[in-house]
Amino acid sequence: MFYHDGGKLQYPVKVEKPNPVFARALQQAIGGIQGEIRVCLQYLFQAWGSRGPTKYRDMLLETGTEEIAHIEMLCTAVALNLEGAPTEQDEAAKDPMIAAVMGGMEFQHVLTTAMAAMPIDSSGVPFNCSHVYASGNGAADMLANAMAESTGRMLACQLYKMTDDPGMKDMLKFMIARDIMHQNQWLAAWEDMGGRSNHPIPKKNR
Amino acid sequence: MFYHDGGKLQYPVKVEKPNPVFARALQQAIGGIQGEIRVCLQYLFQAWGSRGPTKYRDMLLETGTEEIAHIEMLCTAVALNLEGAPTEQDEAAKDPMIAAVMGGMEFQHVLTTAMAAMPIDSSGVPFNCSHVYASGNGAADMLANAMAESTGRMLACQLYKMTDDPGMKDMLKFMIARDIMHQNQWLAAWEDMGGRSNHPIPKKNR
Amino acid sequence: MFYHDGGKLQYPVKVEKPNPVFARALQQAIGGIQGEIRVCLQYLFQAWGSRGPTKYRDMLLETGTEEIAHIEMLCTAVALNLEGAPTEQDEAAKDPMIAAVMGGMEFQHVLTTAMAAMPIDSSGVPFNCSHVYASGNGAADMLANAMAESTGRMLACQLYKMTDDPGMKDMLKFMIARDIMHQNQWLAAWEDMGGRSNHPIPKKNR
Amino acid sequence: MFYHDGGKLQYPVKVEKPNPVFARALQQAIGGIQGEIRVCLQYLFQAWGSRGPTKYRDMLLETGTEEIAHIEMLCTAVALNLEGAPTEQDEAAKDPMIAAVMGGMEFQHVLTTAMAAMPIDSSGVPFNCSHVYASGNGAADMLANAMAESTGRMLACQLYKMTDDPGMKDMLKFMIARDIMHQNQWLAAWEDMGGRSNHPIPKKNR
Amino acid sequence: MFYHDGGKLQYPVKVEKPNPVFARALQQAIGGIQGEIRVCLQYLFQAWGSRGPTKYRDMLLETGTEEIAHIEMLCTAVALNLEGAPTEQDEAAKDPMIAAVMGGMEFQHVLTTAMAAMPIDSSGVPFNCSHVYASGNGAADMLANAMAESTGRMLACQLYKMTDDPGMKDMLKFMIARDIMHQNQWLAAWEDMGGRSNHPIPKKNR
Amino acid sequence: MFYHDGGKLQYPVKVEKPNPVFARALQQAIGGIQGEIRVCLQYLFQAWGSRGPTKYRDMLLETGTEEIAHIEMLCTAVALNLEGAPTEQDEAAKDPMIAAVMGGMEFQHVLTTAMAAMPIDSSGVPFNCSHVYASGNGAADMLANAMAESTGRMLACQLYKMTDDPGMKDMLKFMIARDIMHQNQWLAAWEDMGGRSNHPIPKKNR
Repeated sequence: MFYHDGGKLQYPVKVEKPNPVFARALQQAIGGIQGEIRVCLQYLFQAWGSRGPTKYRDMLLETGTEEIAHIEMLCTAVALNLEGAPTEQDEAAKDPMIAAVMGGMEFQHVLTTAMAAMPIDSSGVPFNCSHVYASGNGAADMLANAMAESTGRMLACQLYKMTDDPGMKDMLKFMIARDIMHQNQWLAAWEDMGGRSNHPIPKKNR
Repeated sequence: MFYHDGGKLQYPVKVEKPNPVFARALQQAIGGIQGEIRVCLQYLFQAWGSRGPTKYRDMLLETGTEEIAHIEMLCTAVALNLEGAPTEQDEAAKDPMIAAVMGGMEFQHVLTTAMAAMPIDSSGVPFNCSHVYASGNGAADMLANAMAESTGRMLACQLYKMTDDPGMKDMLKFMIARDIMHQNQWLAAWEDMGGRSNHPIPKKNR
Repeated sequence: MFYHDGGKLQYPVKVEKPNPVFARALQQAIGGIQGEIRVCLQYLFQAWGSRGPTKYRDMLLETGTEEIAHIEMLCTAVALNLEGAPTEQDEAAKDPMIAAVMGGMEFQHVLTTAMAAMPIDSSGVPFNCSHVYASGNGAADMLANAMAESTGRMLACQLYKMTDDPGMKDMLKFMIARDIMHQNQWLAAWEDMGGRSNHPIPKKNR
Repeated sequence: MFYHDGGKLQYPVKVEKPNPVFARALQQAIGGIQGEIRVCLQYLFQAWGSRGPTKYRDMLLETGTEEIAHIEMLCTAVALNLEGAPTEQDEAAKDPMIAAVMGGMEFQHVLTTAMAAMPIDSSGVPFNCSHVYASGNGAADMLANAMAESTGRMLACQLYKMTDDPGMKDMLKFMIARDIMHQNQWLAAWEDMGGRSNHPIPKKNR
Repeated sequence: MFYHDGGKLQYPVKVEKPNPVFARALQQAIGGIQGEIRVCLQYLFQAWGSRGPTKYRDMLLETGTEEIAHIEMLCTAVALNLEGAPTEQDEAAKDPMIAAVMGGMEFQHVLTTAMAAMPIDSSGVPFNCSHVYASGNGAADMLANAMAESTGRMLACQLYKMTDDPGMKDMLKFMIARDIMHQNQWLAAWEDMGGRSNHPIPKKNR
Repeated sequence: MFYHDGGKLQYPVKVEKPNPVFARALQQAIGGIQGEIRVCLQYLFQAWGSRGPTKYRDMLLETGTEEIAHIEMLCTAVALNLEGAPTEQDEAAKDPMIAAVMGGMEFQHVLTTAMAAMPIDSSGVPFNCSHVYASGNGAADMLANAMAESTGRMLACQLYKMTDDPGMKDMLKFMIARDIMHQNQWLAAWEDMGGRSNHPIPKKNR
């Protein structure tokens, strides 16, 4: 069973200088294969299919639920970065800087959502749920999760480098910290299950 | 911000006689275009992009959060229906009934998840997030939501006809009731926004 | 049965000043989820599956056929906007304005079609026919259609804002008018079927 | 510009003994990569992007328009083959033959469209418009079209073998004849453009 | 640079009793997310993007090249299992066992390839190259590879259980052995890079 | 069976002046529908499904294997063109030229692979294996292959026009020559099989 508190985000999201090109980059963290929709659904489906010890199941539910709050923060960040974005081609025709920005924007932010986030990556490709990995083998899933958090953190660190907005740097610093925590958590669970001795997976040969 | 209670489902899910073919049919309600992942993400993305009155925003967050619980119930139902499913081709070769069942099963329940639900539809096609409709226009979104709940309820009613398992009928009866409630809720919101007078959308011509 | 008149478009399409970035924006109206391929196939498939009164079936066939003519107009507009587009990277290297334009262009217009329209959206994602909604329930389909025309018109109005080309403004003005007409038509059909009293859909509970 | 005559099909479609498994097979001819939606859109997009002699453009428009009528016939055939299909799992549980039929059916015909055709293939995968090949090179496109008609006819001949329903055999005989005609037409156009001497494509080396 | 020896397979593939339903199951090992096309392209793209020590690059190229040979073996196995499959619906109509088999077959084996393997999974969904994970971080990629081999071996073991054909059991025994070897190899590389101390990835915080 | 020589490319790849926008254009030749992954898998799957004379089977294996080497060259070219690409949004904010370049880059080269090639096209859409055409009819497949090489060469010639880098021009000149050779080879095979007299395909009417 799930609940929400519409009144607050997990961590405050502020944007000092909106940047529509950075909004497009942030989409990778929402709908990219290393993004938050992926880990959110992956942890929840692993939990719902889990037949093993409930301690892992609870950890998966707990973390999957936190990831919904991360999607919420990122979608808020995208909307704030799109405030006052250029939407008129003729301005662009006059000013290469505006043209450059429009060239670098996700057009669908203007054309499809009236300046809001979408479940797409930074190329505009919608998230495809085939990336929700849940094998039914706990140890294999923990490796998949540790890997997802590793690439997720690589992305967050790169996004941190791509912005000089204090609000965005602050939000990303928080997310990077959570990614460290989750990455360690999944590796610890894998070790707790036997670590290297889990392999080759599956244990029963045939 | 989101929370969960791992201890209980929104409504109890029981299966008396597991049926792996029905498990495949249930997948449509999880990963189908009229399924719960779709409405869950659609309501949440509409809320996160919403710039209008908070009362609609809260309703979207509230309902989107409930839909996570519906995915949870359906995934539980799929896992229970897969208990003791045939997984050996040679049995099938001997018995046309088993062959028939295997023919009607989603093979990936055996091959990919060790008998758990996936974010796919009843054809095995993964959910594609391009179906998350959020236009930035509240009235247009309310129509999209009313339509999604209409087809969602049509599916739930058909699934109800396809099973004679008391547990499954009970779960679906609950879901059908929620679909009525949500369908009415979105139409009421559309009317509250002006109903027919919202159209043609958008109001400002050009 | 279908016929065509190769000699003329439904409405004349002229472009005074070609703009390859606007050509990319126009792709959303061809292959986007709110675009013309979608409504065209949606109305035709609803008609071909329809078992209800023929008056709705005829309206669906009539409108679906008109949408083919809209795709034709938009493809013509894309081709005209691509006339004389920059195709040499080295020019771009010298001139930020050209680089900006190339950055904002759909590369496949240069690389895949020799400057013609494609059935893709403004992000370059091909149209996926899972967006052709046809539920078999007339009232639900009419809501889907009214919603599709609403977002279609929102897109046309935004495109109208993004160009100052007289020919493009004229074409879009025509399309916006058709979208109003169709949006009202589907809502009228929904009301004619009983409107609010159609809901909850489906009527027969279980 | 396009027109239709809702009153009649290009060729009459009759089904004596409905067969829901054959309805699934027919889906390949509607939404498969070698199916009618593909050739329809392929010919129309080639025509709309065409800058060459109008005789080829007219042939493309003419044939593309005919393919809409083929989709219409096939959708009618699917709907007729779905009449009286089993939709109750409990019947199936009692009768292996019904279970076999349900196992062989496209579940979405029951769950998503209330027994109507969809723009999907026989595996239930929606048609993806990336298969609409239009290169801007007439000779290359004619080869693509001849190949599409070749595989389309291979499919129609296989479907003919898979049914003993007189109505279906009659409809398929008509379609096979049209496929021969179109296959020859595209090869003739390729030869008319210079045939083997068109190659290597493109003529201008670099 | 790559070479091949058309004369022989990496390991002989024999099928005593063709089984078209098992051919469908084998498709998961070719085009599934845990299948051979995925690991083949994943290892090659990791190698081609690799900027680290050449010893890992060579191991990736070596293993990626071997996986091509595994796709070759599996495609041969699918073709052999499709020998003499039923292709006539009317037979099926007479015999529930044939109907069951046809229900369990991949229809496209009959309709699209004239009885040959396709780059699809067991649900008929084409492989999507977004599953080729190559992050540019060696340790993260090694975890991704170990996980891919783990789920790949789980699949091979399940396929082994699903057949009693001596030839198929022999081929799968060979593949399972290779999966063990590769699974250990990637974990050893991860440990060689520092193992647990690689984490959190990336090392440089921001 | 397949082998590789990690030590060398089929043809040397050099880049004098890295150009990240050209790297994006090159992606079309890797993961585009007319690109090398497509022809590679198409030729190999045709070979593995082939039941005809071994001379065609060998030619397909031979050419399919060469295409792997072309993917390798192109991935190397992408990596070299990404050397020193701008990865900091704030630089861009200061300089329209950098903004233009970033606008024209594939963002995932920065965000997902740490500056390496991906199996995507120039719009960032992952290659979808439904484009691997293998019909089981040799003549139809040869037309498909000739067409694929025709559009592949059109792309290579356009890329040649888009760069003034001597290394890239040299690499593309080599690839264009191979495309001519392969295009002629498939047409010769089609003629060797009977050419025009192969049609209409299939020979056996029904």
